[in-house]
Amino acid sequence: MSTSAGLARTPAPPYYAVIFTSRRTEGDHGYGAMADRMVELGSGCDGFLGIESARGPDGLGITVSYWRDEASIAAWKRDAEHLKAQRGGQQTWYADYEVRVAKVERAYGKR
Amino acid sequence: MSTSAGLARTPAPPYYAVIFTSRRTEGDHGYGAMADRMVELGSGCDGFLGIESARGPDGLGITVSYWRDEASIAAWKRDAEHLKAQRGGQQTWYADYEVRVAKVERAYGKR
Repeated sequence: MSTSAGLARTPAPPYYAVIFTSRRTEGDHGYGAMADRMVELGSGCDGFLGIESARGPDGLGITVSYWRDEASIAAWKRDAEHLKAQRGGQQTWYADYEVRVAKVERAYGKR
Repeated sequence: MSTSAGLARTPAPPYYAVIFTSRRTEGDHGYGAMADRMVELGSGCDGFLGIESARGPDGLGITVSYWRDEASIAAWKRDAEHLKAQRGGQQTWYADYEVRVAKVERAYGKR
């Protein structure tokens, strides 16, 4: 994993992106601690390439995590602590969300 | 295009996502007006499916636009007014950015 001021330094494509878009419910209910823990835990998973996250003043959040392949995404989704967080997300933290799994075919930047 | 509180209502995959991650420079320099205009202009393009955007207090911004296919992305990239905005982005508005073009293979949500 490599980041500079929030932008993930990913390798040359192809690789995978998990685009997670969400609207929060009111109140924290342990969300901040869980979110920090999930970044820590996910970052240590085999195949993890990087993460970018932003939440605007209107409450819309976008987190994109990057992965070597579909197998590494599937393994992370099955992680026991992550499964518990996914249930909390459905029941408590998110009013709405969408997960999109996408294969990055090309990429370019300012650098 | 269909959105509800910021989440794009996209059709069943496959479709394409353009993940644009950026860090702004200091000051507006016409950025806000340009960004609003680009959303207006892009939303009218053939093949446009939706857009989600968030910028956090740390200055990291993520905008994901969704498209029917690669041809519609290529046409939007070549739009004359958009080309001018791309130059402004490189020269003035963005300290750093990365564009990733990805094929959405599967998606699921809370709804």
